[in-house]
Order: sequence, then C-alpha cells, then structure tokens
Amino acid sequence: MKTSSERQNAVRDYLKKCSADAIIIPSGDNHFGEYYQEYYACRKWVTGFTGSAGILVVTAKSAALWTDSRYFVQAEKELLGSGIILMKMKMEGTPSIPEWIKKETGNMGVVVLDGSLVSKSEFESLSKALNPLLLNAIDDPFTEIWEERPALRFNKITSLDVSLAGESISSKIERVKSSIPSYGKFAYVISICDDIAWLFNLRGTDIPYNPLFASYSVITKERTFLFVNDSVIENTLEKELNSQGIDVLSYNNIGQFIASFGDDVTFVAPADKISISLYNQAILGGAGFISDEVKGGITGALKAVKNSTEQNGFREAMKRDAVAWVKFIMFMESELAKETETLAEHILAEKFANLRAESPDYRGESFHPIVAFGENAALPHYSPSENKPVTISKEGFLLVDTGAQYIYGTTDTTRTFAIGELTEEQKRDYTLVLKGMINLSRAVFPKGTRGSSLDFLARGPICTAGKLYSHGTGHGIGHYLCVHEGPQSIRMEENPVELKPGMVTSNEPAVYVPGSYGIRTENVILCKDFETNLYGTFYDFETLTLVPVDTRAIIVSLLGNEELEWLNNYHKVVFNTISPLLKKEEAEWLAARTACIG
Amino acid sequence: MKTSSERQNAVRDYLKKCSADAIIIPSGDNHFGEYYQEYYACRKWVTGFTGSAGILVVTAKSAALWTDSRYFVQAEKELLGSGIILMKMKMEGTPSIPEWIKKETGNMGVVVLDGSLVSKSEFESLSKALNPLLLNAIDDPFTEIWEERPALRFNKITSLDVSLAGESISSKIERVKSSIPSYGKFAYVISICDDIAWLFNLRGTDIPYNPLFASYSVITKERTFLFVNDSVIENTLEKELNSQGIDVLSYNNIGQFIASFGDDVTFVAPADKISISLYNQAILGGAGFISDEVKGGITGALKAVKNSTEQNGFREAMKRDAVAWVKFIMFMESELAKETETLAEHILAEKFANLRAESPDYRGESFHPIVAFGENAALPHYSPSENKPVTISKEGFLLVDTGAQYIYGTTDTTRTFAIGELTEEQKRDYTLVLKGMINLSRAVFPKGTRGSSLDFLARGPICTAGKLYSHGTGHGIGHYLCVHEGPQSIRMEENPVELKPGMVTSNEPAVYVPGSYGIRTENVILCKDFETNLYGTFYDFETLTLVPVDTRAIIVSLLGNEELEWLNNYHKVVFNTISPLLKKEEAEWLAARTACIG
Repeated sequence: MKTSSERQNAVRDYLKKCSADAIIIPSGDNHFGEYYQEYYACRKWVTGFTGSAGILVVTAKSAALWTDSRYFVQAEKELLGSGIILMKMKMEGTPSIPEWIKKETGNMGVVVLDGSLVSKSEFESLSKALNPLLLNAIDDPFTEIWEERPALRFNKITSLDVSLAGESISSKIERVKSSIPSYGKFAYVISICDDIAWLFNLRGTDIPYNPLFASYSVITKERTFLFVNDSVIENTLEKELNSQGIDVLSYNNIGQFIASFGDDVTFVAPADKISISLYNQAILGGAGFISDEVKGGITGALKAVKNSTEQNGFREAMKRDAVAWVKFIMFMESELAKETETLAEHILAEKFANLRAESPDYRGESFHPIVAFGENAALPHYSPSENKPVTISKEGFLLVDTGAQYIYGTTDTTRTFAIGELTEEQKRDYTLVLKGMINLSRAVFPKGTRGSSLDFLARGPICTAGKLYSHGTGHGIGHYLCVHEGPQSIRMEENPVELKPGMVTSNEPAVYVPGSYGIRTENVILCKDFETNLYGTFYDFETLTLVPVDTRAIIVSLLGNEELEWLNNYHKVVFNTISPLLKKEEAEWLAARTACIG
Repeated sequence: MKTSSERQNAVRDYLKKCSADAIIIPSGDNHFGEYYQEYYACRKWVTGFTGSAGILVVTAKSAALWTDSRYFVQAEKELLGSGIILMKMKMEGTPSIPEWIKKETGNMGVVVLDGSLVSKSEFESLSKALNPLLLNAIDDPFTEIWEERPALRFNKITSLDVSLAGESISSKIERVKSSIPSYGKFAYVISICDDIAWLFNLRGTDIPYNPLFASYSVITKERTFLFVNDSVIENTLEKELNSQGIDVLSYNNIGQFIASFGDDVTFVAPADKISISLYNQAILGGAGFISDEVKGGITGALKAVKNSTEQNGFREAMKRDAVAWVKFIMFMESELAKETETLAEHILAEKFANLRAESPDYRGESFHPIVAFGENAALPHYSPSENKPVTISKEGFLLVDTGAQYIYGTTDTTRTFAIGELTEEQKRDYTLVLKGMINLSRAVFPKGTRGSSLDFLARGPICTAGKLYSHGTGHGIGHYLCVHEGPQSIRMEENPVELKPGMVTSNEPAVYVPGSYGIRTENVILCKDFETNLYGTFYDFETLTLVPVDTRAIIVSLLGNEELEWLNNYHKVVFNTISPLLKKEEAEWLAARTACIG
C-alpha cells in the first residue's frame, strides 16, 4: 500500500503532465449529496484523513487540508507524517484556500479541479477569488492517478407505489413544468439524486443511509429523460416509465445529451446544483442558460412539501419506530439493571438496528446512529465503535440519536436518558432543553414565517443558563429519502425559505458540556394549517415522533403550566397510539413512562 | 387658494419647460429623517393628502399617489376631486411607480425628481427600473412652482454638555475616523442630522419631536467641517468647536465644498444616506467614491451603542417620565370616577404634556402622542384630535403611547388601561401581549444574535390566539435624539445588524381587533453583558421603563411562574425607584398598583 506522500507525488505527476500548478480535491461526488460511494473518496485516499468534511489542495511542492473544528484532533492524528499542512477553518490566522494557493504559487499559474464535483456558482466564486490565477475545470483526474480505485456499485432500482408516494409521476412532472418560467424550448436539468427519486417515485440502494441511485434527469416540454446506469431498471419498470412519457437513457450519456441541446434551447437549472462540467457542456453545445432561482431548486421546493399520503406515511413510520424504541429502552434498562458494567454503546446501537429490522417495511438506518454516554455525548457528531468500546457506567446521561428508513417514511429521534443519580445542574439543563423543544412544538405563527424566526423559541431556554448549542435547531426530513433535506431549516442563520404546511422538520435543541455530558431531545414536527381568519392565515406544528421523554430528569417547577400540559398530553398520545402495538408487559412499562407529571 | 388641479397644472407647466415627461415627488427632506419642515411638504401641497407616507407622480396628462394601507381611507377622502389616482401599495394589481410611468409615457421619455430628496442607491435602483426611460436628478422644482411656500426656520443650536453626552466630540471623531477604511486622502460625508447632533454633542429645535438642526458634516484626515445655517451657532460655541479642530461653514455651501474635493480625494458615505445630488457634485468635481458599507453607516452604528453616561441618562429620563405617568394615570382615574362621560382623548394628551413639563429638563414630546379609546386603539397610528374629540366611556381599553425628550434621554412608553368590565377575550389578549413583552424582556442570547431571532419571543403568544400585530416589535431609540433610530431592530424581517451591549430598543408587542379594541404594552430595553464563559459571551436586557402595568386585565393562569415572577419583580423595582419621588398619596396609589399578583 502506498503512503500518503507517494499518493501526493502521483497527484504531482499528474499536475506536471497537464501543466497545472495546483489542484483542489474536494469531498463528495457529482450529485452534491451527503453520502457518496468509496469510489469518490479521493481526498481520503490521498491524505488518509477519514473525516466527512475536508478539502485538499496539492501544489508542486506542498499540500494542505482544510477542515472544521469537529475534526481538528482527528485530522492532526491522521495527517501525521504525511507532510500535509492542517488548515483549521474559521480559526484566526487560517488562510482561505485561494489565499494559500496564491501564496504558494507566487500569485500566478493554473489551478485545476474536477468540474463534476463543483457547482457552477461555487466554481465562479472560486474563480473570482483565485484571480489572477486561472481556474480550470478538468475531468476526474483519479481515473488515472488512483490505481486500485474501488469500483462503483449500481444496484437495482425499485418503484415506490403511488399508494405510498401519494402522487403520480406525471402529476409531479406537470407541477415541475408549470414552475419553470416559460422560455420557449427549455430543458430543465436535475442532478440531485433525492429530487429524482422523489420525482419518479423510485428508490435505490447505491449509497448508505439514503435510499438513492445515481441518476440525472432532463425535462423538456414534450418528454422527460431519466439517466441511470445500465440494467439497474428491470424491463417491466422501464416499460411502465415509458408509458408515462419517460425515456430511460444511459447514465454515462448525460454529458453528450446536454451538449446536443443546441442554440434554440434554454437550459434551466439551479446554479448551485448543476456541476460546472455539465454547464460547460451545454453552453459549448450552444444552449442559453437561465438559473432556477427557486430556493432549493424547483424540485427541491416541491419535494419539501409532503402530500397527505406522505404525511400519513410519516405517522405510520413513527409508530413502527416507536415500537422499536420501547423495546430498545426496555432492553437497555434491563441490561443496566444487571449490575454489571459491560453494556457498551456500540452493542446498544446494534441492538436497535435489529429491533427495527423486525418490521418488514424497514429499509435500514437513516444515518449512522449516535449512542453516547457521559462525556461522549458532549461531542455532537460522536459515533460509537466496536474498535473503541465504551461501557455505560452507573451515572450520567446516555444520548441516543438514531433514525430509520421505512417504505412510508423516514425517522430521526433523539432521547437522552438519566442513568443513576443526576446533579441539579444536569437536571436543570435537561429541563431547559426540553422546555425549548416544547416551546417550538407549541408555536403558532403567521403564513410567511421563516424558520429563523422560530429558532430562538427552542434555543432561548438553555441560553438563560449561560449555555448553548451551536448547531441548528431543525433540518428538513425526506419521505423515505434523505434524513437531511432542504430547503427549509430552523436555524439562527437567515434562510429566506418560508415554512409551509406539509414541511417536515426536526426539532432538536441540545446542550453540550465539554468533558462532562451532552443532552439533546429531538422530535420531528410537521407544519400544518392552524386557522385562517380576518388577521390572515396561521400555521402550527404537529409532533410526529411518538417516543416517551425521560421524565426522571425534569425539574417540574421550571416548566410553565402550558408546557407541562403539552408534555402530559404528548405522553397520553404516545401511550394511546403505541400501546395497542405492544405486548402486555411493554404496554405496562409504557404506561409508567408516560404517566402524568407535575 | 389654488385647487389641487391647479397645482398639478403648475407642475405640468414646469415639466413642459424642462422637457420632461413625468416627475416623481416623494415625501421628506434632504436629510432623510422622519420629520421635516413644512417647506418640504411639496407632495402634500400638490395633492391635499396629509398622511406622512406617500409618493406622487405627475405626467403630462395624469397623476397618481402611492401610499400604504394605513392611509387608504384618508387618502381616498383627501384626494376626492383632485383627479389623482390612488395607488394602494402592496395590494394585488397595484402597479409599481416605474411600471405605471412606463405605461403612461408609452415607455419613452424623461423622468425627473429632486436629486436632494433621494439617496444614491435609491436613485440607481429607480433608474434601473425605469429603463428605457431616462431618470434625471434635478434641483428643487418647487422653488419655482410653489408661490406661497412656507419659509424654512433655523433655530439656535445648543451644546449638550459632555457630562450628559458621556464622550467628547474629539473622541467621537477619532472613533469615526478609525472606522473609515484607509483610502489615502478621504472625505467622509454625513447627511443625517441625528448622526451629526450625536457626533458634535449639539441639539436643535428645527423640526418637531426630534431635537435636530439642519446640517451636514465632512470629516477629513486633518479637519472636521460642520455645515449649519448662518447665525444658528453663537460665537462662544463656534469658538469652542474651533478649538476642537472643527470648522463651522455655511449650510448652503455644502454642494460647492463637495464639488471642490478634486481627483486625489476619496469621498466616502453610505450609499443609502447620501443624496444623488451631493454624490453627483463630488463625482463631477473629480473625487472617487467608496460606499460606507457599515450597516446604518459608520456614525449610525457608533451612535446606536450608548455609553454608560447615556445609559444612566436614560435611567434618569425614565424616572422623570414615570413620575409624570403616575400623575397622569391618577388624574385619568379620578376624572373617570366622576361619573360624567366628558373626558376626551385629546384632553388627556394635553394633560400628559403639561405634567411632563413640570420637569425643568423636559424638552418636549418625542412623537405625537397616541391616546386612543376603544376601537380607535385598533388603529396603530391613531392620533387624538380636538377637532374630532372622542370621549372615554365606561368600558373598554384605553391605549396611551407617548414619549418625551429630556436632556439626558428619550422615552417611549405604551400602557393599555382596563376601563370598566372587560370580556374574557379582551383579558386573554391583554395577557398574551404582556406575556410576549415579558418573554423578550427575559431573553438571554449569545453574542452575534440579530433582532430578527428574538422577535418571535414577543410575537408568538398572541399568535396562539390566532391574532397578530403586523408591525415590528422593537425599534432603536436615540439618546435625547430621535425616538426611532437604527440600525438595529427587533422585527420578523431579516436585518443583519447584531444586537450589542449599549443598544436601546423598544419592546412593544400588541394586538389590534378591528372596530373593537387595541392593546399594546411597550417598555424600553437596554442590551447588556450577561456572562462570558466557556460557551462564549451572552447578552441580556435591562428594562429601562418604570411605569406600572395594569394588572387588572391579567389572567394569571396564562402566565408561567417565571413570567409572573418577572412582573412582580418589575413592579417592585418600579415602586422602589419611583415612590421616593412622589407625594405620599401618589406613593400609596403606586404601592397598590405595583402589588404582587398571582
């Protein structure tokens, strides 16, 4: 196996060959998703750094890796001996990538990067920042550099019945078309795999956690084209798609297809969701370009608003998942009651996956589960590992954040459990985080409200203790799709997307006390119509998640009457909905855990 | 007296003379403030429409006035017979000003407007929207058109002692200079009168409510120039200013001065706070331009953060004002107890002004007072008038929103009083508005928080009743300056300005039930340091206003323990601070009104 230095030199040989002075090697694939196949792990292959976020730059004589604070310790360790400089993002004194490249190259020369991995808008802003250096989009250099590169896997695609999707493909395509401003002969290009999976009521298994398949789509006035790998679609499914006006074409032909648009076609796509490579091919082919200015792109914005079938699917998924949660919590507690300190975090994570698999409609986890005890829970992105087993001891908080894919919906739930005695500070923090979660759950707000207006309802209570969480409060969630979905969010940062009925979002305030403990309580909430009256239209949230909240850590006096009422009512709903699906002793356990407090 | 039609024709004669096809006549003066002298009321003079917001456009054959929903009814009435079309802003089907002008002129020709009344950035966006029509900035056309135009008043300017301002002029000027990015030879131009009043520790009386004087200022590396009208500054004051490196020049020479910058000078100003006229004069003179990109402008941003002397001044002003409030409420109640229904709103407003005038440091009201009974209070911008006296009858809410200028600070307080029996709905609405006010008062938030993140703390409670208020929750407040001040705000709309310790803002949730009643409870809050710890820096608010809240309309069970505790503690502070300044019977009354509830 080659060392990182040898791999860097292979990259440098490539640079020489193409007369370039620096190369930027980002993380990710040509579909801009959260997960990607090992085939695209080029940055990891060169550096040895295994974190999810990082951008490598290699010049003739030097190399540097930019990553964020989550990975500083890990990157330092993994880069040891590689000669690669660690660039700590957002820290004082850290140069930006363009600044560093300019310095290393003496402010002249050519910079290259794989044009399939960067969007048109990113490429253009990078290009501007690198000026006077020239930035060139090139083809994937690693087909040449990476000798034992893993193969791409393309698995069979399955159809999601309209009884689960709630809307036919043709109806969705019509809605997309009617959102495209009329530019005569247009071609709307989609590169985002979850948008395509949603649009065509199809699901795949190409990558972990997200039920997606590698694909592109082009929509014109007359026809719709779906580009997938050869033989991933069975004949019967292809015929069914054909019958709905969809031509299935070969994935590898997307570039050629786009290049053939010609000068009477207006090529439309969101500038931040189309690669510079595809963009260049269309423009070289003569097409004009209009950016899709809808926030999240036309398909992303439509996908975010769940129809009533999808909403019901979420409710069903939450029920199935709650059954697994009840069994999981009971298992955990009985194991801990054994008075032996041998229960490890990763064992619990495995157990949970097995319990979920008891449902025939389960299709895997929706993200890598977090089961974190004590100080581990203070790391928001901690993962348990059997290579470094951590045993749950007798006192502290156990944080469990997991989610699942069911054929009717995606879940994402966090509960924090009180193990043994807690300090007053721990109880207060737990209660303030819960208070924030309840505040957001209870919100009623006028049409037009953005998530940033509501964020502080959840964030405020823990701030009164002089503590905070630095992540967002809520992310969109897909319907049997990606657990992290846009375009809406509930964050402090401004995001102009308005919350709309049908949008499904997480509600996850938290607190992290470094070296000590972490608390997060997360439900999934659905935006719904509340009331329309002479003042206008109001929306509110329905809480979809149905998992009991550990009431043992609550200081009741810190909750207002209405907050307590909300919690007791929530627990009543949980019990009434889930207990019929449980065995007698499970239902009895749930009755105790959902009993009224205060 | 001429009719509106005759006046429009005078404008049309002018258009013909200068070969223009349309003229835009905005509201306001050359300093972009909220209030202006009658001399600048050109739009009102032509149209007869007396509302504060409105833009008139006159073409060869037509005329139209754009105004917002506050003024639809009034404008319809006042425009009757004028032939001027009323354009209802933000209503479906209403064309924008450029759209309408394009249609009226057949999409060709020349549009003019007074270049001293429009900022560089506004002019440029208007120019773009009017394309292909040409937009020309002209000199004030009404010097010619308006025959019996009122004269401008320029009153004596007074100095604000540094013991009240808290910082010397030279120190402020140094801070302004150090915020100007270094562009070699620069000239920073200030057109905003309250920024100038703050910078030079001066106050005036040229316009109502705002203690300002017409002025400009130019700051260069070596000297600072203050442009004021002749003989408004006494010799001794001028000498004192001179001794601090300030040259006092004639107000009317500002254009000429700017034109003489020459091509080695970089002229710096906020693009939205410099008139296109002044900008053009500088550019024609050869100067280069750099926009001051600080939100609110450099001086606006510095002014917004009150120093500790100013903060103490606010506290003093609030005490004085609270004494007047106590006397006012007692007067009102004793009048109402007389069992005769003869107490009119405008009488109460006058009484309040007289009570305030008992303080030698009082310098007038900070805005036109609102004393509104019953359905009048449902109009957020209602003014009582002796021309149309409204008597306070025995049941309903009386809303009083007034503020004052004291030499040490500016106040702005709203209280809503329960007169007679209230309905359950009225009590609930009152309590929810109060709950919102308390929520915001109690907020603790991390450094970097924008007002838009906190707005919903105040707005949320009344939304749970399916009601709302459509104005912002909080505006900045000047220190013995404008009661409406930027750049920070607490609104739903995104405003990138972060809240900082020293910023003074209003906190005024409300609800308006059309045709029935209105409720608003307003305090002034000061942003302060709360704590710095391993999580970062946190801020909170100190409530400055010291006026009892009417507890008779509260439904105690709708308030949480902490909210009730806040209110009881607030009332304790009010009593302890104000009672020593009161007569015995007043203090007894206050004790009853600030007694613990719940």
